[in-house]
Amino acid sequence: MKITLAHGSGGQSTKELIEKIFAASYKNPVLDMMEDSAVVGGSNKIAITTDSFVVDPIFFKGGNIGRLAVCGTVNDLLMRGATPKYLTSAFIIEEGAELNELKLIAASMAQAAKEAGVIIVAGDTKVVDGNGRIYINTSGVGFIEGEDFASTKCEEDDAIIVSGSMGDHHAAILSHRMNIKNEIASDVAPLCDMVSNLQKNGVAVHAMRDITRGGLGTVLNELAEASGKCFKIKEDAIPVNPQVKSFVKLLGLNIMHMGNEGKLVCVVAKNDAEKALQIIKNSKYGENAAIIGKVSWGGGVVMETALGGKKKVGILIGEGLPRIC
Amino acid sequence: MKITLAHGSGGQSTKELIEKIFAASYKNPVLDMMEDSAVVGGSNKIAITTDSFVVDPIFFKGGNIGRLAVCGTVNDLLMRGATPKYLTSAFIIEEGAELNELKLIAASMAQAAKEAGVIIVAGDTKVVDGNGRIYINTSGVGFIEGEDFASTKCEEDDAIIVSGSMGDHHAAILSHRMNIKNEIASDVAPLCDMVSNLQKNGVAVHAMRDITRGGLGTVLNELAEASGKCFKIKEDAIPVNPQVKSFVKLLGLNIMHMGNEGKLVCVVAKNDAEKALQIIKNSKYGENAAIIGKVSWGGGVVMETALGGKKKVGILIGEGLPRIC
Repeated sequence: MKITLAHGSGGQSTKELIEKIFAASYKNPVLDMMEDSAVVGGSNKIAITTDSFVVDPIFFKGGNIGRLAVCGTVNDLLMRGATPKYLTSAFIIEEGAELNELKLIAASMAQAAKEAGVIIVAGDTKVVDGNGRIYINTSGVGFIEGEDFASTKCEEDDAIIVSGSMGDHHAAILSHRMNIKNEIASDVAPLCDMVSNLQKNGVAVHAMRDITRGGLGTVLNELAEASGKCFKIKEDAIPVNPQVKSFVKLLGLNIMHMGNEGKLVCVVAKNDAEKALQIIKNSKYGENAAIIGKVSWGGGVVMETALGGKKKVGILIGEGLPRIC
Repeated sequence: MKITLAHGSGGQSTKELIEKIFAASYKNPVLDMMEDSAVVGGSNKIAITTDSFVVDPIFFKGGNIGRLAVCGTVNDLLMRGATPKYLTSAFIIEEGAELNELKLIAASMAQAAKEAGVIIVAGDTKVVDGNGRIYINTSGVGFIEGEDFASTKCEEDDAIIVSGSMGDHHAAILSHRMNIKNEIASDVAPLCDMVSNLQKNGVAVHAMRDITRGGLGTVLNELAEASGKCFKIKEDAIPVNPQVKSFVKLLGLNIMHMGNEGKLVCVVAKNDAEKALQIIKNSKYGENAAIIGKVSWGGGVVMETALGGKKKVGILIGEGLPRIC
């Protein structure tokens, strides 16, 4: 069955779509009230974030737009030191979209939400004329109990750690679009376990960012700009899956600007660097973590290349890979 | 200047778009941090909501998609008895959209946010291939200090009050699309003043809903279903602007299923009915409020027609007006 404009009317068809697909998948007492907004318990320090997902294709090796939509927003909350609690889920659907695909997407969202320990408390569905595309916005609220992480808190000599291999999501999406057959799968994942393990063990995390579109190069530049420090990294230290490495070489891509959906970079106090690395390595999705450099006096991002040279790493210029997330 | 796919890369062009258009309009210390999520003070009972806006045209008499996006979400928070505090703003933009239009939209959002007493604390921008359409998701967080309102709290003999004339937004959008010249303007507005006046004066509000797509008929049916009560209303008592009345008659529309964007229905204890009505009438955007009926034993929505007959009012079936909001 295909989605029609009637599914976006706000009337009977919308009600059925919501009840049969979304509410049935996300089921929880707060959402089930079906009010104009969800009422939940709060906390005296909260984190709020929003993200829309327009990835093309909507199903790809390693995940789909639904899993992406939950993980992306959950990870954004984690990056400030918050424990993700509540998500909203808003669909913009072009008529012609397949109801069965919506069902799979909603089920993936429910599963990812369960893994991340969040509940989906509010939703919205709009239908527009078009060709069956599906876009999802998820917004999230998390509670902060300890220190919040912030880019401005980076200090000189802090260690820079990435939680795993770079470029997997980007390479998976691009492989799909170019119809290249390989084993590269998206890394889309919620990083709750990793972040809470760091917090529970008292690691002095100063800043944390998930490395999404724009890639590691862009994220490090954002951290450098916000903190007024120089981020010095070693090319050799950056973990990359061998298959992705070949793919990058073949197509002449720049690994520093390739997007990920289940990787973070964290900046931790020098003395906690090894401890943090081990904790991340022992956490879900962190087995390939590595210390890739340190924070120094100055500004910008400087990389020591594999050949021993030094080069400035810039922010992504141009369009990268459209609709990567 | 037109939006290109590069504006959605997550790199340099995205940064410029965000800094020049969105951050410049929404300016506040929380958003200005430009982190993965916003960290703000909380409350021990919070309301959360989300809404996407796909209205066509994006500029219409009485407002635009930006004002709509702020008011719609602010109103959803108010409907649970929450004081709106924080909004997120996520744009999905098709390439070819005009940068100048984005500027106007962002400025409208900032203005509506100011009127509603909220700040925009987080944002996201995605660009997709297409024909210049603009979609906005706003999610919101509000704090609840007193009783929250909920459909399940409706009691027999409660009065049903609507805050003003029905169908204005619907008629304005449809007039624009059909190129009919008239003076009908959208009612898009934040209803903060009205709701806070009811709360400050201790009115026993049981339930409250904003009357958006689907119209009064759909909203009353939702209240009837959630509360297990019958909603009895009088056709004559429902306020409608004379111009909208003519428009509705001319096109054979059903006022009960026409959308609004600055109107609410509230269900209040019988003894507080007159007091509530006066408070709403004296509040911003409430001058045409009216008591339209009462809650009774039974189920569904029953209307006493202008001719003295009785008819069942249903929920909107079919597509209504696509992309009305």
